[in-house]
Amino acid sequence: MFESAELGHRIDKEEYKQQVPELRENLLDAQLDLLQSKKFSVLILIAGVDCAGKGETVNLLNEWLDPRHVETHALRDLTDEELERPPMFRFWRALPGRGKIGIFIGSWYSKPLVLNVYGEIKNAELDQRLDRTIRFENMLSRDGCLILKFWLHLPKKAQKKRLKELESDPKTSWRVNATDWRHYKLYDRFRQVSERMLRATSTAEAPWIIVEGSDPRYRYLTIGKLIHESLVRRLAASEKQIEPGIYPPLTTAIDGVRILQTLDLNRSLNKNDYRNQLARLQGRLNVLSRHADFKKVSVVLVFEGNDAAGKGGSVRRIIQALDARSYRVIPVAAPTEEERDQPYLWRFWRNLPRKGRFAIFDRSWYGRVLVERVEGFCSQADWMRAYGEINDFEEQMVRHRTVVVKLWLSISKDEQLKRFEEREKIGFKRFKITDEDWRNREKWDEYEMAVCDMIDRTSSEIAPWTLVEANDKYFARVKVLETLCERIEVALGEKGK
Amino acid sequence: MFESAELGHRIDKEEYKQQVPELRENLLDAQLDLLQSKKFSVLILIAGVDCAGKGETVNLLNEWLDPRHVETHALRDLTDEELERPPMFRFWRALPGRGKIGIFIGSWYSKPLVLNVYGEIKNAELDQRLDRTIRFENMLSRDGCLILKFWLHLPKKAQKKRLKELESDPKTSWRVNATDWRHYKLYDRFRQVSERMLRATSTAEAPWIIVEGSDPRYRYLTIGKLIHESLVRRLAASEKQIEPGIYPPLTTAIDGVRILQTLDLNRSLNKNDYRNQLARLQGRLNVLSRHADFKKVSVVLVFEGNDAAGKGGSVRRIIQALDARSYRVIPVAAPTEEERDQPYLWRFWRNLPRKGRFAIFDRSWYGRVLVERVEGFCSQADWMRAYGEINDFEEQMVRHRTVVVKLWLSISKDEQLKRFEEREKIGFKRFKITDEDWRNREKWDEYEMAVCDMIDRTSSEIAPWTLVEANDKYFARVKVLETLCERIEVALGEKGK
Repeated sequence: MFESAELGHRIDKEEYKQQVPELRENLLDAQLDLLQSKKFSVLILIAGVDCAGKGETVNLLNEWLDPRHVETHALRDLTDEELERPPMFRFWRALPGRGKIGIFIGSWYSKPLVLNVYGEIKNAELDQRLDRTIRFENMLSRDGCLILKFWLHLPKKAQKKRLKELESDPKTSWRVNATDWRHYKLYDRFRQVSERMLRATSTAEAPWIIVEGSDPRYRYLTIGKLIHESLVRRLAASEKQIEPGIYPPLTTAIDGVRILQTLDLNRSLNKNDYRNQLARLQGRLNVLSRHADFKKVSVVLVFEGNDAAGKGGSVRRIIQALDARSYRVIPVAAPTEEERDQPYLWRFWRNLPRKGRFAIFDRSWYGRVLVERVEGFCSQADWMRAYGEINDFEEQMVRHRTVVVKLWLSISKDEQLKRFEEREKIGFKRFKITDEDWRNREKWDEYEMAVCDMIDRTSSEIAPWTLVEANDKYFARVKVLETLCERIEVALGEKGK
Repeated sequence: MFESAELGHRIDKEEYKQQVPELRENLLDAQLDLLQSKKFSVLILIAGVDCAGKGETVNLLNEWLDPRHVETHALRDLTDEELERPPMFRFWRALPGRGKIGIFIGSWYSKPLVLNVYGEIKNAELDQRLDRTIRFENMLSRDGCLILKFWLHLPKKAQKKRLKELESDPKTSWRVNATDWRHYKLYDRFRQVSERMLRATSTAEAPWIIVEGSDPRYRYLTIGKLIHESLVRRLAASEKQIEPGIYPPLTTAIDGVRILQTLDLNRSLNKNDYRNQLARLQGRLNVLSRHADFKKVSVVLVFEGNDAAGKGGSVRRIIQALDARSYRVIPVAAPTEEERDQPYLWRFWRNLPRKGRFAIFDRSWYGRVLVERVEGFCSQADWMRAYGEINDFEEQMVRHRTVVVKLWLSISKDEQLKRFEEREKIGFKRFKITDEDWRNREKWDEYEMAVCDMIDRTSSEIAPWTLVEANDKYFARVKVLETLCERIEVALGEKGK
């Protein structure tokens, strides 16, 4: 795999000098087109062997490009705000918006590689991590992001020579440390694991480009030209990156029985029982939120449901039991300008809670496969792939000890009508029924199908959907609180004690 | 000052029950108006004596209001990302946007109060800090923010009783800790300092409201009603909060001599000297950026100047000397939607660098007193007060060991014309001269006056302006680099060594 990058490629000074001015003009030109069209974002990863010139390359790219629209990230130690969220949080928040170029030195590849070389994770786990990486990059690239992954390679001898050179020059000796030499001694192992990693993660959308690092001029020109070409090609491509394609219909039972129809929506509770249970459950939740181990977990609550199903009322009953300092309610409405320039899930990542906190989403990332699907706000390709993306997202949360509680509040069509009419009668403005509510209602069946598909495809053991029969508000609120308490108890190992 | 809050105010249960429903309706109503009109943001501080019911009050407000548009912040320990920025950073990033309500328990008042009570800062320093607080709140309130500051008071006996009650109930005993008792023993001292603090910071725009905390019902109703009334009154007020007023003209020398005119814009450097000095200065800057103490400071560079004065070229010469991992260039263009919902300086606060890093602003917060003033994008009141706000902002940076380097690149009107014409001839699109550039040029004199005022009012010993004669690009770049190096050397204590 590295053979072609050990041929001693080089460019002589004259040729370099001759080619650079044009390349720079071209790069700036393409960057300006990117900036103005805002068609996509560009992610450049500079990875590779130690001392193969990663830092210098990035410096040069910043010089060649307009540095005002380039963001360079060298993500080293995690800050404590990052430590309290899933590992990918730091990368999500560093993603360039549309029109921008983000350069990463040290990316999601650094840690798995080093851990495996040092024997801290087995090959199976390495593969698992790389799989997740591929899914992440696929998601980005389908969102329109242009991903360019450069691997700077040095043959073993060249690395040794380079380390010695750097070390002997007082101006550069600071750049070589004990870790570099330790890594050098593991060169063969690094090479072996890198090869495995590069092979596994060279996808059609984001292939690795291996560049020989020995000669700076060769390295700079190669990378510069590849960036330019990729930009130009992508800018010239039509808006529609992904072929619409013919998608197989999502499986629906041929007997027409759907999961939502199996619910007995009329389950109910009388006022007295409700009051007692509510008090008991709120007490239980409050105690849990002050459990000694609660600061090791976080809770993400997702509320979805038919219009007027009583989401707001349920949220209220939960927060009554909590300290206001420990939760945030996040209403999901139209994305802001900054959010629109990012992949779909970005705005949810930025709202993930710290340890010991609750984030309560009033509607959520599931909008992608519900309203956006039904109303045609995104393409079929977008919502079809969203199921997998969402599962990945939630898996990352759960892996980081986030309790993900997803609630679908279900009411019947008749009950909804009754509530709409009541609200219109009250006329109190915060319950105003809008035309949109009535329009959504006309698409009841389409929404129901979308909900069933959503449940089929995203209810998993680690992040199951709880369907809440909500024609009776008392019953629904109690079930919501009960579910929440149980899930936290399981996470804290308190269940069944 | 606390006399009225020691009268044993109380509301009986019946009255409370009767009043609450209407109050809640009213609060929700007003909150919805706020949300829809997006006229201003609301900041509610809940402060006061320990165990006077701050937490419970905030919980209740979240229940009464629509919690989806309330953000509650209990800012306790600083995260490491916050520690590396000036102390107010954490508050800036928690500010509610227009239409939202932000509730703070523990605010900018907590720390000065405790430090003074414990004798760690003297009264003089307390006063200084409170002065800064007032300026901060003034700025917010002139930006349209409604600030409501509640101080929950308890007489000494009541505090003791409350602590004992909480402690003896197993359900609440966790809420009382050693610090509470230590503070209780210092009750008199706390009272004395609080009184001083409240008196000093009760301004017309943001007066303190002292509420007796002993009786929860009294406390809740009082605060709820005051919030409601303030919201309603403010919502009813006309758009224009601040009287336009008649402002005195800014002093300009009656002999017509302005600072910009004293510059010899034609200072120049020949190519050879330039090359030598550039290499020397870039080396010096690079060494400084790797200085052992550099990780204790941060650098904020502000580039302002006439159109086509060569800002971009100067930025390039600086970053050539730096590692791309250590700087960010921030182009200042139109604010995003999220930024427009915040006070003017918010978007600069969010871009402040961490320790050991450079932030290079290509245009900056000075837009307020330059383009926004000249083009009338903001009112005279807004730009007149901006001088003070900017000085405060920069003082906070400097106090936190940020090296603030402000550069005005000055070219003559003729030189600008020459450069515009050259750029039009080249026709290369990234240098395209727009109609706006020509329009700005027509207002040359107005801009020049604005620049002179800016320099007069914001060039301070801690954050001076450096005027750069920029008709000759070589001379300008060298002066920029030299200034930067010198300022960092002074900050590192390396000057004159």
